[in-house]
Amino acid sequence: MARVLGIDPGLRRTGWGVIETVGNRLRHVGHGVIGTDAKASVPERLRALHEGLSEIVTRYAPDEAAVEETFLNRNPESTLKLGLARGVALLAPALADLPVHEYAANRIKKALVGAGHADKEQVALMVRHLLPGVGDASTDATDALAAAICHAHAAGTHARWRPAPEPAAAKPGP
Amino acid sequence: MARVLGIDPGLRRTGWGVIETVGNRLRHVGHGVIGTDAKASVPERLRALHEGLSEIVTRYAPDEAAVEETFLNRNPESTLKLGLARGVALLAPALADLPVHEYAANRIKKALVGAGHADKEQVALMVRHLLPGVGDASTDATDALAAAICHAHAAGTHARWRPAPEPAAAKPGP
Repeated sequence: MARVLGIDPGLRRTGWGVIETVGNRLRHVGHGVIGTDAKASVPERLRALHEGLSEIVTRYAPDEAAVEETFLNRNPESTLKLGLARGVALLAPALADLPVHEYAANRIKKALVGAGHADKEQVALMVRHLLPGVGDASTDATDALAAAICHAHAAGTHARWRPAPEPAAAKPGP
Repeated sequence: MARVLGIDPGLRRTGWGVIETVGNRLRHVGHGVIGTDAKASVPERLRALHEGLSEIVTRYAPDEAAVEETFLNRNPESTLKLGLARGVALLAPALADLPVHEYAANRIKKALVGAGHADKEQVALMVRHLLPGVGDASTDATDALAAAICHAHAAGTHARWRPAPEPAAAKPGP
C-alpha cells in the first residue's frame, strides 16, 4: 500500500488530492483546494499556501508526492506567478522528506484519458470513475488527483487502474 | 535601529545580505550566497534554499526583508525557474512574520547609483562604498545588499545614506 499526494499548484487556488494504491486498486483518501486571498501580499499568499500544504502532508502522511508541471503561459508575468506557487508546492513535500515527482499536464491527461489533449472535464470524469468517493470535487482537486493517479500508474507495474470494488473504497477520507 | 535582510533569489545561487540602519547611517552585518547542487532534483534544491534562508533569518533576526524582483527572462523555462526560487525566497521571511518588500532591479540600481541601467559592477562599487565591511563579496551578495539598502532608503526619511564613520562599522558580522 502506498499513499500519493497529488498537487495542482496555483497562486490563487492550489488543488490537492490523496489516493492509496493497493496492488492495482486505487482508493480515494481525501482532496481539497487551498485558496489564497487575492488582496493579501504575495509573500502572505505563499505563506498560506505553504501552511495549507504542510498541514495536509502532516494529516495524510503520504509516501510520495506528484506535482503537475506548470503550464508555461505566454505572459511572462503569469509564468512567474505560477513559478512562485509551484516553488512552494514542491517545497512542502520535500521538507517532509517525500520523493517529489513532476508530471507534464499532457502526460497526466494521457495516463488518465489516453489522449494528451483531453480537457479538464474529461479528466475529471475519469478521476470520478476511478475514485468513486470523489463526488463533486472541483477541477482543481480532480487535476491534483489525476497527477496522483498518473504517478501511481507510472510507479506501478499494472497497465490499467481499476476502482476498488469494496464499498469502503467510496468513502471519502477525513 | 532596524535590520534589513536583502535577498537576490536564484535557483543556482541566491545572494543574501544583512544591514543595520541607525539614523541615516548604514552598517554591514553579514552577507553570503546559498548555492544549490545543480545535479540534485528541483524540490531538493528548493529545500536547500529554504533551509539556508531560514537559518539566516534565525541567526540574524532581521526586522524586514527586501527581495529583488526577478528579471523576466525571454525564455519561459528560465522565468519559471526564477519563479520557483523567488517563491521560496519570499516564503522564508514571511514564515518568520517579517514584512517582505519587493523592489524591481531598476529601482534598486537607481537608489544606489542614480541610474536604472547601471551594471552589476557599478552597483557593487557603491555597495562597497556605503558598507566598507563588505570586502570582496560576490555580485550575488552585493545585489542582495543593494536590495536591503534600497529598502532602507525607501523606508527612511533621509535623502542619502552615508557609510557609518565608526571603525566598528567596517567589521563584518558573525
